[in-house]
Amino acid sequence: MVLTIYAPLFASSKRAVVTLIEKGLEFETVNVDLLKGEQRNPEYIAIQPFGKIPVLVDGDYKIFESRAIMRYIAEKYRSQGPDLLGKTVEERGQVEQWLDVEATSYHPPLLALTLNIVFAPLMGLVADEKVIKESEEKLGEVLDVYEAQLSKNEYLAGDFVSLADLAHLPFTEYLVGPIGKANMIKDRKHVSAWWDKISNRPAWKEVSEKFALPI
Amino acid sequence: MVLTIYAPLFASSKRAVVTLIEKGLEFETVNVDLLKGEQRNPEYIAIQPFGKIPVLVDGDYKIFESRAIMRYIAEKYRSQGPDLLGKTVEERGQVEQWLDVEATSYHPPLLALTLNIVFAPLMGLVADEKVIKESEEKLGEVLDVYEAQLSKNEYLAGDFVSLADLAHLPFTEYLVGPIGKANMIKDRKHVSAWWDKISNRPAWKEVSEKFALPI
Repeated sequence: MVLTIYAPLFASSKRAVVTLIEKGLEFETVNVDLLKGEQRNPEYIAIQPFGKIPVLVDGDYKIFESRAIMRYIAEKYRSQGPDLLGKTVEERGQVEQWLDVEATSYHPPLLALTLNIVFAPLMGLVADEKVIKESEEKLGEVLDVYEAQLSKNEYLAGDFVSLADLAHLPFTEYLVGPIGKANMIKDRKHVSAWWDKISNRPAWKEVSEKFALPI
Repeated sequence: MVLTIYAPLFASSKRAVVTLIEKGLEFETVNVDLLKGEQRNPEYIAIQPFGKIPVLVDGDYKIFESRAIMRYIAEKYRSQGPDLLGKTVEERGQVEQWLDVEATSYHPPLLALTLNIVFAPLMGLVADEKVIKESEEKLGEVLDVYEAQLSKNEYLAGDFVSLADLAHLPFTEYLVGPIGKANMIKDRKHVSAWWDKISNRPAWKEVSEKFALPI
């Protein structure tokens, strides 16, 4: 069955892409250029009605939302590659907990930083300095909790790598790169060690090489 | 093993509470009064380091994030009550997709409406009319996609009730109640039929009766 992922160059999609590569799966890609607004084309809306990325097509099955795609891949191909969901119901609970922390606490301020610092200048928009300041504060508070958690466990959900860790990769790459706030990671000893470990995984290196940031 | 849920009166927690009741589980509750800022007390922060609600304690196991708690309950007690995760990997994928749509597209504008219309006056704050207008527009666009989806399927993830549907209950109760925008649901035929169906489930009626809105 052919696996096809839409918009692999953009950060949200890379949550799905890195999961496919961790699992050793072959896949095809279809580019969708957000900077040109292609996600609002009628052909794309027919595939993803919210006009968001990514979408995974697996034969005649279709799924969207990056973290849902991660879970689907990790569950369907559970027996190959690392088990990214934990081994027990309790471990999976912790994976789900930190996946949701990423989605609801870590990602929103980091997305605001990405849009205001990286994308606004590209699109001729003025960055909102108040939003930047508030987002950096919020993200810092979240990272303080991560620092405590990662002082007790090697990875977020425990002593095993999981989807919860991988979900952080794409936008944290913006944070330590074009956003220019690598110190938020580096100044926290356990967060920094965790970041080094997950961002040096072969699967993520392959994502970074094959699907460079679009800007 | 005793199950204990924190802050059952508040909307986010009710995602967990309704799941416990759907599964026919006995549980104890601990109140946390957000209006008094009790979620920032050191004793609570020791349990939930982000100072957010809810938390589920299951014997010596602890989990937070409302949608992660839902998944944990639905998986641990899969064989009792309705199977809220779907029966196959593909069905679960659709459940995960719509759970994530709720978390990332439906909830943020609805939370903004709740905070500005319901909570701001209570806390002596001025509602932000621009945020209210933009949030209503965004939520309306999301509901238009729901209308199309629910014209094809009885429930969000297919023709079976799932966590994806239940996750919508607590804040939609604000929308049709104290927010005063029931028309956003009623004016969309299939969304309205879906809302009637899920909000009339015995488990949700029990939540509404036993854990009335705190305001």
